Amino acid sequence: MGDERLVGDLPLTDAATAAEQVPDDACLAVSGFGSVGYPKAVPLALARAAGWEGTLDGGEGDGPPATGDRDLSLTVVSGGSVGDELDTALVEAGAMARRFPYQARAASRSAANDGSVAFHDRHIAGLGDEVRFGGLADPDIAIVEAVSVGEDWLVPSTSIGHTPAFVAAADRLVVEVNRAQPLALGDLHDVYRLAPPPHREPIPLTRPGQRMGDRRVRFDPGKLVAVVETETRDSPYSFRDPSPRDEAIAANLGDFLSEEVERNPAFAEAVRLQFGVGSLGNALMGELGSVDFGDREVAYFGEVIQDGLLDLLDEGSLAAASATSLALSAEGQDRLFADVERYADDVVLRPADVSNSAELVARLGVVAVNSALEVDLYGHVNSTHVGGTHVRTGVGGSGDFNRNALVSVTALPSTAAGGDIPRIVPMAPHVDHTEHDVGVVVTEQGVADLRGRSPRERADLLVEECAHPDFRPALRSYLDRARETGGHVPHDLPSAFDWE
Amino acid sequence: MGDERLVGDLPLTDAATAAEQVPDDACLAVSGFGSVGYPKAVPLALARAAGWEGTLDGGEGDGPPATGDRDLSLTVVSGGSVGDELDTALVEAGAMARRFPYQARAASRSAANDGSVAFHDRHIAGLGDEVRFGGLADPDIAIVEAVSVGEDWLVPSTSIGHTPAFVAAADRLVVEVNRAQPLALGDLHDVYRLAPPPHREPIPLTRPGQRMGDRRVRFDPGKLVAVVETETRDSPYSFRDPSPRDEAIAANLGDFLSEEVERNPAFAEAVRLQFGVGSLGNALMGELGSVDFGDREVAYFGEVIQDGLLDLLDEGSLAAASATSLALSAEGQDRLFADVERYADDVVLRPADVSNSAELVARLGVVAVNSALEVDLYGHVNSTHVGGTHVRTGVGGSGDFNRNALVSVTALPSTAAGGDIPRIVPMAPHVDHTEHDVGVVVTEQGVADLRGRSPRERADLLVEECAHPDFRPALRSYLDRARETGGHVPHDLPSAFDWE
Repeated sequence: MGDERLVGDLPLTDAATAAEQVPDDACLAVSGFGSVGYPKAVPLALARAAGWEGTLDGGEGDGPPATGDRDLSLTVVSGGSVGDELDTALVEAGAMARRFPYQARAASRSAANDGSVAFHDRHIAGLGDEVRFGGLADPDIAIVEAVSVGEDWLVPSTSIGHTPAFVAAADRLVVEVNRAQPLALGDLHDVYRLAPPPHREPIPLTRPGQRMGDRRVRFDPGKLVAVVETETRDSPYSFRDPSPRDEAIAANLGDFLSEEVERNPAFAEAVRLQFGVGSLGNALMGELGSVDFGDREVAYFGEVIQDGLLDLLDEGSLAAASATSLALSAEGQDRLFADVERYADDVVLRPADVSNSAELVARLGVVAVNSALEVDLYGHVNSTHVGGTHVRTGVGGSGDFNRNALVSVTALPSTAAGGDIPRIVPMAPHVDHTEHDVGVVVTEQGVADLRGRSPRERADLLVEECAHPDFRPALRSYLDRARETGGHVPHDLPSAFDWE
Repeated sequence: MGDERLVGDLPLTDAATAAEQVPDDACLAVSGFGSVGYPKAVPLALARAAGWEGTLDGGEGDGPPATGDRDLSLTVVSGGSVGDELDTALVEAGAMARRFPYQARAASRSAANDGSVAFHDRHIAGLGDEVRFGGLADPDIAIVEAVSVGEDWLVPSTSIGHTPAFVAAADRLVVEVNRAQPLALGDLHDVYRLAPPPHREPIPLTRPGQRMGDRRVRFDPGKLVAVVETETRDSPYSFRDPSPRDEAIAANLGDFLSEEVERNPAFAEAVRLQFGVGSLGNALMGELGSVDFGDREVAYFGEVIQDGLLDLLDEGSLAAASATSLALSAEGQDRLFADVERYADDVVLRPADVSNSAELVARLGVVAVNSALEVDLYGHVNSTHVGGTHVRTGVGGSGDFNRNALVSVTALPSTAAGGDIPRIVPMAPHVDHTEHDVGVVVTEQGVADLRGRSPRERADLLVEECAHPDFRPALRSYLDRARETGGHVPHDLPSAFDWE
């Protein structure tokens, strides 16, 4: 053949024809994580078949003309966030009935909140098992983006996510080979697979940069029903520049980390860090270079590699970076794509049930740093639902890391909406991470080290160290009122949500 | 010496003298889990020194006379629940200032709720690391019950809990050798230790009954400052007889399990189960014998072995039972003690950071069954705080299992207080397990399989399948009101806690 991307005798076809392989009420499992590496042409063709007449932001790859021939009612399962072809076009076409476990587009968010799409968010690490062993969803077909494909293998593109689990669980497989994604991305991949219980073995990873598998995802060749060629780039995150407040949070976090690595005997030789998805996480990653880690080996063991890590990789101050997604901006992708082979020395992409594995996060003694919408006086964290009711994206991997980390840090600004809305609140109206999982809270105001503190002590620390001064008097007055009613976790339930 | 319980040159002394080794403001780490295997004589001597004049329920071992010579302000860290010598006597003596991570006596509960003891509950699995690597507590001294001791080793008694981690973390060690505990209990123990990060290796366990370590906990001989002989039995749990409602819950759970093991390919060959602590958990264990598991290998992988498991072990219907504590009633202890060697063929006791390890719970594909105080309409579980404010015992290991299990079941009666108080409520006023961790809810009314369901669907299932019929109309009317305000997780915050 002479084409390294298409190897062997493959069922090549166009996107519209491949889309015909998808039943009207299919459960569709798709590649993609961190808004990269998701399939583009076949989902768009499905949306067109369902009558979607919109235009994609990128302006490229508008797909076939809208026909409205099909009445689709799809369940869509991804590893993490995906692109507009899925979470905008299919939603606006009315073609998506159900969605797991995470979404980050305006259309899908709106549909989850008005109930027109039945959305449920799940922790990332367990999702592969949930899909393979039923109970959550039973995929009819997997649609996966790859940089190359053979008769019984594929090499994922900019994310791995839950592609190996989805391919194993689905009855049929459609592969999109994307020529806009460098073939050398395969050099980053380490596709280690977990056998089903009761034959599951220990994951043999003991260092963040270790490789255990190979670059390919294997599949039963009978599943492969269509291969489609594409050339459309991801439409990934765009990160805002760090604000002065981001920098103040980063400085407080840096002070905490410098002290903690000195104090904690588990960090005598090495520090393994994880940072959450988003502009704040990206800014915090970028500031790591200014933390004094002494001669400790510093490595990243998280779920996404964002732009903020590239400088550290370029400086050589990170021994390794392990994740499941290159959740880079378009500029970050350009930078990495220009030099993939060099980055592949230190960067490993893994399946999401390995990158986020409780087993590995605990074994490696990770310091986890994740953001939140709000934190309450006792350390319960709401990271998903505005006002307790309206979902933003999903819990993602934050729970995988917060729960299993050796030190769990929640970093957030003390206010939202230009200072009008406090983020340290009396009672979280939705809890994603409980008081049992939250160790340290950092805002631009300061650091509250909640470890070993009782709920009453935690409340005082959070008010005095982390809350914005404008809201401290009201928080103190809530606490006074709550303490009159007593209890281990004092609350005044009738007024607990007055601030929401 | 000729005494298998006291081997070598040991600093033998009496309890009052040993108690002098404990500084007034010591951080004290003690053995004990599931109300068994805790130290008895030295804690009682400390309470007497602090002036406690009370009497223990058992009537034995009343210890030295109360002197009131010492003004103690102790931090007490245990693995799980312990006896009255600690959580009644020391609390009533005003000698306990701080307490982690779980308590189950009236005095300690009351002190946690009125704030006179600074209590904070933690997940069990991570506690060993939290103690060893600081942040939570830094033990000055460990007081540990053993069936035998040497110059650099001890064999724990009826529980292992976090004894190995505590002994490693503490500067000094006091051992109570309890002749009322059979020496043969050591045959049950498998003390596998985790190295600190970054040198931690995979835990090599792949079967619930597997042994990886030995019966002894090793320690630096320089730490051993006192050995005290005792002969006081544990004052363990007493279980009530299963009620008709317990039996209805067990029957619904049995129906669910029978279907699930047929449906789920991960259970084709083997089923690994965990049940929570308490009378309901004990009753549910006892009913396992009536579930049809076909020719699957059935094993228990949990944190406590309660009376309900002994019948299954005697019948040979369990391939193995792994836990960290023999949380048996006094009658259950008699039954096991009479035949320890035989039970040791199938029963393994492990350190709590192994029995409850996220790594192992996930690897083994455990079906976890835990109870709760209340469950809200979206599947958030309150398992610790009555009315959201008053702690009962602590989160214990429920989170270790709920989060990492392949199937996570919450089993509870639909009402409390003789039917006056609903346990399916609009909004949980304290969340220990989030919607992301709760898969299936079982009450005496029925089963709500929440997996793959959106929050709106979960609410309908919980009302119609699990809530008590007396409360369904009011729950439906809350949902109608909540849905008017909209959102992915509809709530009417002003009335969300009207039922508490």
